[in-house]
Amino acid sequence: MTEIKVYETGDHDVTGDGPPPPPPPLTPVPPARQRTAGEEARTLVAQTAVGTLATLSDDGSPWASLVSYAALPDGSPVLFVSTLAEHGRNLVRDARASLVVAETPSGNDPLANGRVTLAGRVVAPEGEREATARAAYLAAVPTAKYYADFKDFSLYVLEVDRVRWVGGYGRMDSADAQAYANAEADPVGDARGAIEHLNDDHADALLLMAQALGGYPDATAATCTGADRYGLDLQVSTPRGSAPARVGFAEPVAEKSGLRGATVELTKRARLQLGAQ
Amino acid sequence: MTEIKVYETGDHDVTGDGPPPPPPPLTPVPPARQRTAGEEARTLVAQTAVGTLATLSDDGSPWASLVSYAALPDGSPVLFVSTLAEHGRNLVRDARASLVVAETPSGNDPLANGRVTLAGRVVAPEGEREATARAAYLAAVPTAKYYADFKDFSLYVLEVDRVRWVGGYGRMDSADAQAYANAEADPVGDARGAIEHLNDDHADALLLMAQALGGYPDATAATCTGADRYGLDLQVSTPRGSAPARVGFAEPVAEKSGLRGATVELTKRARLQLGAQ
Repeated sequence: MTEIKVYETGDHDVTGDGPPPPPPPLTPVPPARQRTAGEEARTLVAQTAVGTLATLSDDGSPWASLVSYAALPDGSPVLFVSTLAEHGRNLVRDARASLVVAETPSGNDPLANGRVTLAGRVVAPEGEREATARAAYLAAVPTAKYYADFKDFSLYVLEVDRVRWVGGYGRMDSADAQAYANAEADPVGDARGAIEHLNDDHADALLLMAQALGGYPDATAATCTGADRYGLDLQVSTPRGSAPARVGFAEPVAEKSGLRGATVELTKRARLQLGAQ
Repeated sequence: MTEIKVYETGDHDVTGDGPPPPPPPLTPVPPARQRTAGEEARTLVAQTAVGTLATLSDDGSPWASLVSYAALPDGSPVLFVSTLAEHGRNLVRDARASLVVAETPSGNDPLANGRVTLAGRVVAPEGEREATARAAYLAAVPTAKYYADFKDFSLYVLEVDRVRWVGGYGRMDSADAQAYANAEADPVGDARGAIEHLNDDHADALLLMAQALGGYPDATAATCTGADRYGLDLQVSTPRGSAPARVGFAEPVAEKSGLRGATVELTKRARLQLGAQ
């Protein structure tokens, strides 16, 4: 499992005032598994069908443009582009390309949302892989049926060499081609509905988790900021300030509907722990 | 005024079945001004503060990454990037860059939404331009105050050489540096609220416009699909099929609140025209 790089203020050559550091936990925190960069990347790529592609113009300068894509089972993006578009002409000349896929924005600060850069080379798939790629693209981009047979369109698979994931401020990591291909998209996917439900209806349970399992017995409130197959991210209020915390599920969730049971188990565990003190 | 290029099916080397062509208008259509590519680009750039940047990695391959930006009064994007990020290191080595700004997605098909590519070179602004650029960035990206003084961050202005706007399927055009710098962002901006209101509460008025001013006296229904300072885009249902139409305001709208009066004037003109027949 890759270590998630936490971007410390100390990495910067700081001269100004940053935000105050969060208060440390007061009790030992059980280890809470997190998604690897490969899993984060695969999850983002599985959530949408639109990204921004960087290609090389005829003078070697970079050219960014919006594209639709599909994903093959190994996470390789499938592109279907026309030579009437600059990116289509660029790829004929130079196969090098990079694709950014970003989380659907929420909140006021787009840089707080997740995004991933995939970089590699496009190839024209052949034989069975061509049929698979075409079917995947037509499933992901239904309007493509109108131009599927236009002769100026070419089908490409982006063979990913490098993956750079940024989860928002202070959460980022890289993955290599193998780690990306072998990772699974999180079946929980976009958890914003579940997070809203937890914050609206289960603030008491979140507070118990922060106190008993998150390392903050002095917590006065906790909101859920993230939910994935491995656990919940919390933002905890304490008299000492606000801090992030993570609480892990007993078992990874196998499908989105499992999130509810896993959260109930966490709450029970937190109650038990507090009762035992 | 630039001609908006309409992407005809005939531009493609077609072998398959495309969508059927729309029925032609039955009556002469008054000329309806449209935004130029420069105006479209400036409008998109003014609407948001996040885009995807393409830069060149050390081996000359393209690298795409998410960035926040601000815009100077001439539309030049301001970037503020760290050398801890790959794009920051790339720009130190090679100033060539390209930025995509996309309309906030709506509907199921992201390629139906507008986007623009700006391409050029970044420069580190100096003197008064540096102060202006910094202030613009801090206004557009409030969280930047936390890292404004980090020494690994550099302020850049993207000096735009080339602009490529795509308004969705079949609407696209280029603008040069001068046309982009001289164009004004449409004060109407994101008109989706106004469009929804027109469709929900004024379907009868839209139908009158389509019949009297849009060239479709046989229209049975019309929905508004776009609204800008110069007029309304309609999608018209007729017994002969569905067609796009455009109806122009008497005068360009100077601010967003003027959209209502301009639409009332259009409705009156349509009534008058139909009454006179």
